[in-house]
Order: sequence, then structure tokens, then C-alpha cells
Amino acid sequence: MDIASLIGVLLGGGLLFAAILTAEGSSLGAFVDYPSMMVVIGGAFSALLISFPLKKFLALFGVAKVVFINKTPDIPKLTKMLVSLAETARRDGLLALEERISEIDDDFIVVGIQMAVDGSPPETIEELLRTEMEAVASRHQNGKSLLDQLGRFAPAFGMIGTLMGLIIMLGNMDDPSSIGSGMAVALITTLYGAIFSNLFCLPFAEKLGFLNQQELLSMEIVIRGISSIQAGDNPRIVEQKLNTFIPPNLRTTADENEAA
Amino acid sequence: MDIASLIGVLLGGGLLFAAILTAEGSSLGAFVDYPSMMVVIGGAFSALLISFPLKKFLALFGVAKVVFINKTPDIPKLTKMLVSLAETARRDGLLALEERISEIDDDFIVVGIQMAVDGSPPETIEELLRTEMEAVASRHQNGKSLLDQLGRFAPAFGMIGTLMGLIIMLGNMDDPSSIGSGMAVALITTLYGAIFSNLFCLPFAEKLGFLNQQELLSMEIVIRGISSIQAGDNPRIVEQKLNTFIPPNLRTTADENEAA
Amino acid sequence: MDIASLIGVLLGGGLLFAAILTAEGSSLGAFVDYPSMMVVIGGAFSALLISFPLKKFLALFGVAKVVFINKTPDIPKLTKMLVSLAETARRDGLLALEERISEIDDDFIVVGIQMAVDGSPPETIEELLRTEMEAVASRHQNGKSLLDQLGRFAPAFGMIGTLMGLIIMLGNMDDPSSIGSGMAVALITTLYGAIFSNLFCLPFAEKLGFLNQQELLSMEIVIRGISSIQAGDNPRIVEQKLNTFIPPNLRTTADENEAA
Amino acid sequence: MDIASLIGVLLGGGLLFAAILTAEGSSLGAFVDYPSMMVVIGGAFSALLISFPLKKFLALFGVAKVVFINKTPDIPKLTKMLVSLAETARRDGLLALEERISEIDDDFIVVGIQMAVDGSPPETIEELLRTEMEAVASRHQNGKSLLDQLGRFAPAFGMIGTLMGLIIMLGNMDDPSSIGSGMAVALITTLYGAIFSNLFCLPFAEKLGFLNQQELLSMEIVIRGISSIQAGDNPRIVEQKLNTFIPPNLRTTADENEAA
Amino acid sequence: MDIASLIGVLLGGGLLFAAILTAEGSSLGAFVDYPSMMVVIGGAFSALLISFPLKKFLALFGVAKVVFINKTPDIPKLTKMLVSLAETARRDGLLALEERISEIDDDFIVVGIQMAVDGSPPETIEELLRTEMEAVASRHQNGKSLLDQLGRFAPAFGMIGTLMGLIIMLGNMDDPSSIGSGMAVALITTLYGAIFSNLFCLPFAEKLGFLNQQELLSMEIVIRGISSIQAGDNPRIVEQKLNTFIPPNLRTTADENEAA
Repeated sequence: MDIASLIGVLLGGGLLFAAILTAEGSSLGAFVDYPSMMVVIGGAFSALLISFPLKKFLALFGVAKVVFINKTPDIPKLTKMLVSLAETARRDGLLALEERISEIDDDFIVVGIQMAVDGSPPETIEELLRTEMEAVASRHQNGKSLLDQLGRFAPAFGMIGTLMGLIIMLGNMDDPSSIGSGMAVALITTLYGAIFSNLFCLPFAEKLGFLNQQELLSMEIVIRGISSIQAGDNPRIVEQKLNTFIPPNLRTTADENEAA
Repeated sequence: MDIASLIGVLLGGGLLFAAILTAEGSSLGAFVDYPSMMVVIGGAFSALLISFPLKKFLALFGVAKVVFINKTPDIPKLTKMLVSLAETARRDGLLALEERISEIDDDFIVVGIQMAVDGSPPETIEELLRTEMEAVASRHQNGKSLLDQLGRFAPAFGMIGTLMGLIIMLGNMDDPSSIGSGMAVALITTLYGAIFSNLFCLPFAEKLGFLNQQELLSMEIVIRGISSIQAGDNPRIVEQKLNTFIPPNLRTTADENEAA
Repeated sequence: MDIASLIGVLLGGGLLFAAILTAEGSSLGAFVDYPSMMVVIGGAFSALLISFPLKKFLALFGVAKVVFINKTPDIPKLTKMLVSLAETARRDGLLALEERISEIDDDFIVVGIQMAVDGSPPETIEELLRTEMEAVASRHQNGKSLLDQLGRFAPAFGMIGTLMGLIIMLGNMDDPSSIGSGMAVALITTLYGAIFSNLFCLPFAEKLGFLNQQELLSMEIVIRGISSIQAGDNPRIVEQKLNTFIPPNLRTTADENEAA
Repeated sequence: MDIASLIGVLLGGGLLFAAILTAEGSSLGAFVDYPSMMVVIGGAFSALLISFPLKKFLALFGVAKVVFINKTPDIPKLTKMLVSLAETARRDGLLALEERISEIDDDFIVVGIQMAVDGSPPETIEELLRTEMEAVASRHQNGKSLLDQLGRFAPAFGMIGTLMGLIIMLGNMDDPSSIGSGMAVALITTLYGAIFSNLFCLPFAEKLGFLNQQELLSMEIVIRGISSIQAGDNPRIVEQKLNTFIPPNLRTTADENEAA
Repeated sequence: MDIASLIGVLLGGGLLFAAILTAEGSSLGAFVDYPSMMVVIGGAFSALLISFPLKKFLALFGVAKVVFINKTPDIPKLTKMLVSLAETARRDGLLALEERISEIDDDFIVVGIQMAVDGSPPETIEELLRTEMEAVASRHQNGKSLLDQLGRFAPAFGMIGTLMGLIIMLGNMDDPSSIGSGMAVALITTLYGAIFSNLFCLPFAEKLGFLNQQELLSMEIVIRGISSIQAGDNPRIVEQKLNTFIPPNLRTTADENEAA
């Protein structure tokens, strides 16, 4: 559960609601127009449907869920575990790692350790793990680009709706008193497009990009850790190498580690 | 047949039509203006004609067709086939692959396997296949850039049309009652440019980029597969390597593979 | 002679003229304003003069000519020639190429073949040809960037002209009947900037980029061909390598080649 | 204390205040609207909360402080110190550096020198220091991107607020005399968004980018210096190498250095 | 003295002046507003002060001078000199270059030749010269980015000024006759921002980028030349290598060179 994103959506939405409700002469009704919603949201999703195959398009909804429900990798814990595996390997040999595989709940590490135990050469292990890492990056990139595109199409269809509204209004200027309300309706699509893009699509895309970066970082740490373990590096050196990926104030030393 | 793109075009177009037809005081006639269409579509195509040689320009129509009619490479099937070739090569030697070439309907794989059978050195095969891959990427890139350019020129000519309409209207302000309709006509070119760009050109370009990416991925898999086969890798290793390119839930194991 | 660019300019210009002439209440005179032309075109060229040294700036005119008068390299013919040189080298030795140099009208190939005949080591030849290739790319890039800048400055000076026109108009609002015509004149600079940029500068820049890409491709083919010839590759292999750069439907096989 | 940033903020803010206070018919009150502030600043921060995990988001405030309170690395002094370490190493051997470690107050150098004294191989030291350097770059990049995003969201929420204000105003046009003030209020959010973005977020982000670049440069100098020291280079060569990173007019020669 | 930039500034400024003076109903006075100037120029410089440390900010003025007063490296002359040094080295040995050092007025070449004479290994010389080259590129890049930022902030503060002007005007609509002039004044800041950015900042930044590119090219030529000289290459080969950097029509052959 990612509390920040939820707070952000509620806070941002709440602020806009509050602004509408407290403004003098304003009413919520003036901001709700279903046909406008259809043009902006429907139009943006149509453009997205054209841009991607159906299966990719449907992935959008799973991807949007990840923004709220995700677990950022716990990098200090990951480092600790790799250092502990390095200690086992150093003390009892690489084969001794086999017994510890059941402790690990991250498939990516399991594959790497299993290959090391099986005696695959280091380059083969690294190549395989890196290919997996690139594949993960590319799948994430695809998810992010769905939201980025949606964030670009929504304001465009907002503008299309406003142009349509203006053309209709300008063709019916016999009754000047209706100009104001006609123009208000015309502007609503631009407003919808701007809110949909800036409160949802673009921040969601940004968040996915950040989560992707975190996951790639943790995979990079695993790859370097396994390579160090296989090379039989001293656990202290393994720790020193992996700690460079952690901000100084979160680093643990081998001693604390052993004590833990 | 790519159903998503077709649905997207019909849905997006339908929504805009519905919005026009249901809006109060609106009529379809107010949104049809042939000279405006000439300025926007004709202008954007003229700019495209200047930007590319004639032959490239004409390729635009073939490229646009690909958005609707294409087959995304079936990567799990491709992997299965390469693993099966690896099994043949491992059991009966590289030369045994010659008999299986007739089964393969993808020229790119045929060329690679044939060269492996002929005993070309691995680097030569990889270099040749990679050059072919780069050439495919560059041709696709060209097709995509045609649509990207069109998507950039269309709104520009929409704005040019609107400026022309405004200048004409502003020079004829003797009859104030005509100002509204003059301005409505002026705005139509901007609307056309925005729709043409956001419902056709840009999503089409995006789709081509995605298809290109998929095809390059499948070529990458073929290159790695052939290289593994030629190196005499164990079919399980070949499978493990190629599976990294497939999302985990779609992966098949060697056993299922043999059972299939 | 590049027919597409010429058609594009005439068609695009013609469409805009036709739109002006056929619009009700419009006249060509309303669209011609010399001071506005001075501000937009003169301003954009001034900014370009500041951006580049005089000699580079003057190259702009030669560069613009290339858009219309150019010859795209004939890559299938080039490939055929290199394959034929490979046959000569294979049959009669590298020195036999000396007699064939007079047939070649492309200096870039002549330099490479001459060096190969003189016995320069392959790396020296490749380094020299690649440096030449980079230098060509950099010169072309400079030409393209002149037009790209012009295409960016023109709309900016169009906006500057419109702002100036609006300020003048707003300071003279005593006579309301003149507001319309004052505003029409103010908008003309924006129109000029948009047309100059989108019908000339940007498509021209795009075309130069495309021509550059084609020329670099043909130079790349020459470099790979000469390297293959010098390595004594089988002409069939040379052909197969070079053919990868050609779309499949334009490829010729060695047999057709010999028959030709 | 970074005096320039402080002057910039005070000067820029002061100029805008002065412009408001001196303009005829203007009053500060017309520019203060709390609900508008909520929409723009609150909206932009909400979007930022969605874009990043909570911990990252909170880092924003520490990052903003760095803009004002920081110390740019003193590169000439750094170079002098590394040259002096090189002299010690050359004269008394690498081990002699151990005694000098206490003089050094930069952890990054201490780690490198300590490893050199401990006899770690040069590649290991460089790899470790480079990983640390990349990690620092990535943390800084994250901080900068928080401000960049804020600088993008603020004008977007400014526009959202203005659209909301316009829609409210257009729905209440019965009293024409209120149109002006309604529109003035509507425009205030756009003004807030533009000022918040251009006087705070974007310059702050730019400054962080610059500080990051400076710190990476000093880390690069340390890495090259330690590598040179470990290789036993002549201190004059070390100095010549490191001096290339300093603008010519700030360089010191070994002689001045010794005299100092 | 760079005549093109001076002509550009005078021509561009002159055109705008002429347009103002000749327009009907216009006066220079309507375009001069000191508070507006303060907001735009002062605001943009404030934002720049925040973006960079004081020392860097002050470098802006030196950098702007370079746009007008600079000498583009004379590459054909540089090539000739390197070829002549190659002849000396080939005829009389590398040590004979020592006597010719006094002829050279470019420090970068002197350093390289001196190191070659001193017998430094080629990789050391190249590494040192490349570091110097990167440092020059990075300093130039910094200078260019000052102007690029200024060119981005100026229109932003122009818009801020216009929004402030509009808000003031809209709050004082009791006297309709003042609306026009109020709006004219409001637009002036946008005009100032656009002119300052497009006639000064952006073209200046472009020019610096071009000068930087030229200087890096000449440094690249020097590095390759010295490497060739040190390798004892035949002067004709040296010339052929370096000539690739010069457009064909400006190349000199060794014979002309000797005759000169």
C-alpha cells in the first residue's frame, strides 16, 4: 500500500472540490457535464486503443493499480541478506548456499544462486540475469508509456472539445445571454483534460518510472552481490561494494550485521 | 487484423460525432467545411511531400495500412521453435538442422540456420543478422517519422487556416452579426488539425513504434537463439535464456514443451 | 531534380492562395503587408546572422538549393559495383582493382580502393574513411541546423510582430471601427511566421536530414564493401552483407548481377 | 551559504512587489487570494505526492535547503592536496599515506587512500569509488527531479485554477460589472503558477544540477588522482593531469605548491 | 571581431525600430516602459542568479562578449602547420621539434609536442590532451547554458508581467476608455521577453555552441596530428588524415603546401 499516492489523489481532488464549493456564485453542477467527459476521457482512451495492441491496452488497469499497491524493494535488507549469503559461501563453500535457497523469497536471487551452486560460469549467470533485468525494464517502460500517452492525449481531446463547443456557440449567437454559458461549457473539456492529465496520468507515469528505477537498482545489487559471492570475495568487501548503493545514513556495517 | 486500432478509430470518431449531434443548437453541417479541409489536410501533405522524396512519401499509405493489418510476432511460439531446433542440433548435430529448414516460415531464421549449417563462423552470422536487424529498424523508423511529421504539420496548418479566417473576418466587420459565424469557420481548421493529428497521425505513429519494438525483440531472440544453438548449448539453457524475454506468466518449461 | 519537394511547395502555396481567393469577402491584398514581411523574414534572418559566422550563414542558400536539386544515392547500383569489384579482386588480386578505378565516379570509393591497392592496412583505411564520413555528417548537420533555427525564429518574430501590432492598435482605440483592421494587420505577422516555418524551413530541414541519412548509409556500405574486398571475401558473401542494407524487394542476387 | 541564490530570490521577489506597488490603480490586496494559492501550491504538491513515495517526497525540503546552504568543492585546493599526497607516496612509499589520512576531511578520499594503503588492486578501488560516484549522482538526480516536476505541475494547476475561475465567471454574467473582477481572480492562479515555477522550482532545480556537476567533477578528480598516486606517477605528472580540470587562470604549478 | 553577429543585432534591432516608427498611429514612446523592463530583464536575471553560483553568473558577461569578439580557428592553417611539424619529425627526428615549439602560439599544441619531445608514451599524451579538451567543452557548455536559461526565463517573466498588468487592468474597469491602454501596457512585458530571448539570448547561445564545436574540432585535429607525428607517419598520410576534417574545396595538397 503506497500511502503517499493515495494521499496525493485525495488531497488534490479535495482541494479542487473545496475551491469549487467555496467560490462565490459557483456550484458543483456547473462543473459536471457528461458529454464533455465522454469526449475527453473517451477520446483519450480511443487514441490509446489505436496506439497499442488490445492486450497491452488492457494492461493499463493493472499498471495503474501498481501506483497504489506496491512494495518498494528494501535495499538495506537485501544487502544484509547478500552479505549473509557471502559469509555462508566463504565459510562452507558455494554448495552450502543450496540449503539457504528456501529462505529467499525473491525469484531473481534464487535463479542466480541456483546457477552459482550448479557451477555455471560467472559470465553465463550475469548474462542471464542482465537479460531478465532488461526484460523487466522494457515491460515497465511499456506500462509507463501507456500513462504518458494518456497524459498527452487527454489535454488534446480537451482542446478538441473546447473547439467544438466554441464553434457551436459561435453559430448560435442570436441570443447574447447564452454566450457566457455556452463558453463555460466549452471550457469544461479543457479543464477535464488538464485535471485528468496532471492529477492522474502524468503523476502515475512518474511514479511508475520511479518504482522501475528502484527495482532495477535492487536487481543491479543482486547481480553484483552474486558475482562477488561466486568470486569468493571477503564478506566485508561484498558489504562495502553493496553499501555504495545505499545513502550513507542507512548503511549498516558488518558488525551490526553479525549482531543482528 | 488488429482489432484494437479499428475499435479505437471507430470509437473515437463515434464519440465526436455523437457529441456534435446531441449538443443543443448544433448541426453536423456546421462542422463540415471543404476549403478548411483542403487547407489542413492538403497543407500537411504538401509539407510532407517537401520533407521526403516521392518514393518515401508514397510509402506512407502502405505504412498506415500496417497499423490495422499486422501480426505481432508470437514470441512464446518462436522460443518453442528455437528450443526444438536446439534439441535437434544437440541430438543429431548442426547439419541435421538442414532438414528442418522447410518447416520455418520466417526468412530471418532461415538465413541464420542455413549459415550455421554451412559452417559460417558465429561472428559472421551475428554480424549479418544484426545488419539486417538494423536495416529493418531504420526502415520502420522512416515509416514512423512520416506519421510523426504529419502529426506535427496538421495542427500547424490548422493554425494557419484559423489565422487566415480571422484576418478575413476582421477585415469584414461592417456586419457585426456575421462575426460569430466567421469566427466559427476560422476555428474549424484548428479543430480539423487537432483531430487529424490526435486521432490518426500520432496514435498511428505510436503503434508503428510499438510494432517495430516487438519485431526487433523477436529478431533479438532469434539471434541469441541461433548463437546458442551453434555454440551447442544444452536446450534447457537455450530455453532459460530465451524465456527471459517473455513475461513470467507466459513462459513454458522444457517439459511442457516436450509434451506439446 | 527532386520533383516531390517542388510539387510540395507549389501545392502547399497553391492551396493557401486558392483558399484566400475563394473565401467570401476576402482579397489577396488583405494578406500582403510589406512591413510585416520585413519584421518576420528580416527578424528571423537577423537572429540567424547572430547565431552563425557569416560564411556559415551564406551557406544557407546553397543548402536550400540542395532540397530541390540533389541525387539520392542509388544503393542497389552501388552494391552491384562493389560486388563486381570484389569479383575482380578475388579473381585477379587486389592490384587488379587499379585498372578499374577509372570506372568509378565517386571520390569516396576511389580513395578507399586506391588505399587498398597501395597496401594500406585495413584499420588505416577504415579510420580514414570513417573520419571523412563523420566530417560529411557534421557539415550536413550544420546545414540542417541553419534551417531548423530559421524555422524556430520565424514564428517567434511573427509573434513579436503581432504583439507590436496589438500594442499600436490598443493605443489607438478612439476609432472603434479601425479595431478590426488593426487586429487583422497585427495577426498577419503570426501568419507569415507560421507559413514560412511550416511550408519552407521545417520541411526543408527534414529533407536535408533525410538526404544526409541516405548519404551516410551509402558511405557505410562503401566502407563495409571495401573492408570485405580487402579481406578477400567471397563475392557472394560481400553481396549478402551489402544486400542487408537494401529493402528485400529491391535486392538483386549474384546471378542477376552476373547476367546484367 | 550561497549568496547568489539568496540575492536572486530577494531581488526577483522585490522587483515583482515593487512593480505591483508602483503600478497605477494597483494594490497588493488584488494579488493575494488564498483559495487560489491552495489550488496552485496544494495541487502541485498533491501531484508530487502521487509521483514519489512519501520518503522521497519529504526529501524535497532538505533538497531545497541545499540550494542556499552548500559548499561548492574547492577544486584547486583539492588538486593541491592530491599532489601533496602524491609527493609523500613517491618519497616515502604508499604506506606513508596512512599517517596523512587524519588530515583529510573528505570521506570519499579517505576510503580511496585507505584501500590503496591496504594494497587493494587499482581496478577494485576504481570500481568501488565509481559505484559510490554513480550512487551520489543518482541521489542528486532524484532531488533535482522533484523540483523539476514541481516546476511542471505548478503552471498546470495554475491553468486549472484559471479555467475553473473562468467557468464560474461565465456562469454568472448577469452582472456585467463583475466580469472584470471575476476574470482578474481567475488569472491569479496562472500568475501564481508561473511565479512559483520560474522564481523557485526551475532555478532551484538548475542550481542542484550545477552543484551535482561540480561534486561529480571533484569526485572524478579524486579518482584520477588516487589512481595516479597508486601507479606511482611523478607528482608533476599528477599535477599536470589534475590541472586540466581547472580553468587555466586558476592553475597552480608544483613550485608555487611547494612554496605554499 | 565577428561581423555577422554585430550586423545581425543591428539589423534585427533596426527592423523593429523601423516597423515601430513607420506604423500608422504608432510612437516610440508607446513601446518604452521602464517598470516593464525591470520585471522582464530583472526577473530573468534574478532567476539566473538563483540558478548559478555568483562567480558563474558573473561569467555571463564575458561569455556574451565572446559572441562578438572571437577568432574561429583557421583549420586549413592548423593542418598545414601540423603537416610541416610531421615533416620535421620525419626528417630530423622527434627531438628536432623542440626548436620549432617557439613558432607555435597555441598552448594546446605546445603541451602536446613538448610531451612528445620528452618521450611521454602516446596514451599518456592523448589522455592528457583529451582531458583538457573535455574540460574546455564543459566550461563552454556552462557558458552556453547561462544564455539558454536566460532565453527561457525572459519570456516566462514577460508572461508574468502581462498577467500582472491584466489583473491590474481588470480590477479598474470603471473607466472603459482606459482598457485599451491598460492592455497595451500589459502586453509590453511579453514583447520585451520575446525580443530579449529571440534577438539576444537564444542566438547568442547558438553562436557559443557553434564556436565551441569549432574549437573542439581544432583540438581533435591537433590530437590526431600529434598522435600521427609521434607514430612517425609519413607527412602525406598525416595530411590525408587531417584533410578529412576540411571541406573538399578548402583542402590543400602536400605539394601546394611545400610550395607555400
